[in-house]
Amino acid sequence: MSARPLLALDWGTSALRGALLDAGGQVLAERAFARGILTVPAGGFAEVFETLFGDWMRAPGSLCLISGMAGSRQGWLEAPYCACPARFADLAARLAWVESGRIAIVPGLSVDVDGVPDVMRGEETQVFGALALLGLASARLVLPGTHSKWVRVQDGQVTGFSTWMTGELYALLRQHSILARLMPALEDGGEPAHDAAAFAQGVDAALRGPSLLHTAFSARTLALFERLAPPALPSYLSGLVIGEELKAQQLARGESLVLMGAQGLTARYAQALALMGVSARQVGAGATWRGLRGMADSLA
Amino acid sequence: MSARPLLALDWGTSALRGALLDAGGQVLAERAFARGILTVPAGGFAEVFETLFGDWMRAPGSLCLISGMAGSRQGWLEAPYCACPARFADLAARLAWVESGRIAIVPGLSVDVDGVPDVMRGEETQVFGALALLGLASARLVLPGTHSKWVRVQDGQVTGFSTWMTGELYALLRQHSILARLMPALEDGGEPAHDAAAFAQGVDAALRGPSLLHTAFSARTLALFERLAPPALPSYLSGLVIGEELKAQQLARGESLVLMGAQGLTARYAQALALMGVSARQVGAGATWRGLRGMADSLA
Repeated sequence: MSARPLLALDWGTSALRGALLDAGGQVLAERAFARGILTVPAGGFAEVFETLFGDWMRAPGSLCLISGMAGSRQGWLEAPYCACPARFADLAARLAWVESGRIAIVPGLSVDVDGVPDVMRGEETQVFGALALLGLASARLVLPGTHSKWVRVQDGQVTGFSTWMTGELYALLRQHSILARLMPALEDGGEPAHDAAAFAQGVDAALRGPSLLHTAFSARTLALFERLAPPALPSYLSGLVIGEELKAQQLARGESLVLMGAQGLTARYAQALALMGVSARQVGAGATWRGLRGMADSLA
Repeated sequence: MSARPLLALDWGTSALRGALLDAGGQVLAERAFARGILTVPAGGFAEVFETLFGDWMRAPGSLCLISGMAGSRQGWLEAPYCACPARFADLAARLAWVESGRIAIVPGLSVDVDGVPDVMRGEETQVFGALALLGLASARLVLPGTHSKWVRVQDGQVTGFSTWMTGELYALLRQHSILARLMPALEDGGEPAHDAAAFAQGVDAALRGPSLLHTAFSARTLALFERLAPPALPSYLSGLVIGEELKAQQLARGESLVLMGAQGLTARYAQALALMGVSARQVGAGATWRGLRGMADSLA
C-alpha cells in the first residue's frame, strides 16, 4: 500500500484543504475550499467530497486520509478520541473508515487532567508530521490559533496537551469589549500594521502582571492617558493575550520549542518567545501532509 | 454648612440615582432614572438635572454633590483625577464646581503602577462612605462589577487600587464565545438559577488552574463529555472568572475584606471567598450617600 498515491485532506470547521501526494510524499496538486464542516448539511459529506475531490480518487487502489473536525460528531463520521498517552501507531490503528480500505478519518486525541477533559482534532496529525519533518522523537510544541494547543511528546508518544482560548479572547476583546471603542474600527480597512514595539510592551505587561483580567484594562487607560496611540492598541492587546498564554507555560530560558501555524501569528509568538529567551523551530504548512503520508505508509 | 440638606447624586454611565439627605444623613427621598451620561447630549446636563431634581434644589442654600462618570470628559464637567495616595479631604478640596457653592462633582482617583495608569470614578465615594459606615480607617475593599475594583486604604488614605474586567469578560464569554453555543440562550427567559455547586467547581478549577485562557475551555469539554449540564454552565463559568480574579489577589486565609456592590454578585463573591477561607463584611447601597454626606459636612 505504501506505493499508492494519497489524497490527504485537512477538513476543519471553516475550511477544507486537500493535497494529492505521491508515494514519496511530494505534493502533486493542492486545492482549498471554504467548505468547512459547518457548511455541510448532515448526510451531505459524501457528495461534497465527490464533487470537490472525486476526480483524484478514480485510480484503482486510491486512498484518502482525512484529519480535522470531519471526525467530530458534527462531521462526516465520528472518529472517537484516542486517549493520551498515544503513539502515532495508535492513531493509525483507530482510523474511522468511511469506506473500507479507501477513505478514513484520523481520530483526535483526548487527555484527562484531574477529571477535566481536553481535546484536539487535526493538530495530532500536524504534530506527528512536524516531528517527522524535523526528525524528532521528543519535543514541546505550540500550535497558536483561535484555540492554541500546547503539546508534549516524549519518545514518539504524546503524553499530554492543553488548549488555550487565546485567539478567541483576543477577538472578543478586540471587537466586543469596551477596549474596542478606543481602537481603529475593523470595518475601516482592517487591522492596522503590526506594531512590534507595542506588541513587546504588551508581552512585557502580561509577563509582569497578575492576570489578563487586570492587564487588559491597561489598554484602556494607556489610551485615555495618551500613552499609546489608537493604531498601536491592537498590537498591544495581542501582546497582552499572547504574553498571558506564554507566561502560564512556565518556560525556562534557553528552552527550545517547535512552533507551527499561520505565518503572521507564528511570527508574533516567535517574537514574544525571543523576549523570554526561548527559541522556536518553525514548521511550515506541510506538516499535515507529512503526517497523513506517514499514516498511509504505516498501513502498508 | 453642615446643617444644610444635601442632594446626593450617583450619576454613572448608564444610570442616575439621587437621594435627598437631611443634616444627619437620613434619606428623606430617593429617585432613580435610566439617564446615565451616555443618554445625555453634550451641553444637556444642566437641563436634565433641572428637570429631574430641580424641585429638590429650590430651598436657599441647597447643595448638590455628584459622584460617578458625570465627572468624566464625556460628563457634565471634567473633574480631574486625584492621584493616590489620597485622603477624603483631598477629594473634598478638589471638587469641580458646576455652580459655585451649589453643585459640585467629586473627582475620581488615579494611580500609576510602573507607568501604567489605573482609574476610578464613583467608587472612591463608596469606599470612603463604607469606611465611615463601618468605623474603619484601614481596610482592603472589593467592589465587584463589570469592572471590579480592589482598593487598599491605610489610616484613612487610599494607597492603591486596581481594576479587573471580570464582569465584562464573563459577559463576552457567556454571549459571544464558542462556550455560548453550549449554554441556554439568554433570550429564552434569561440566566438559569445560580447553581452553587457548579459555581464552586468553577472557582476551584480557577484556583488550581494556570490561567482563564486555559480553564475557560473546560466549560466546553465538560459539556461535550456530559459532565456538566447546560443549565449549570453559566454558574461554572462565573466561578471560573471570579475565581481567577480572587486567585490573583494573593489573599491569605483568615484575611477579612470589605465587600460592596449589587446583592446577587456580592453573594457570589462571598461564596467564593468563603471557599478560600477569607471572610467579607458586606456594605449595602447606602455607602455612596454616606460618602457624599460626609463630604458635604467637611465643607462646613
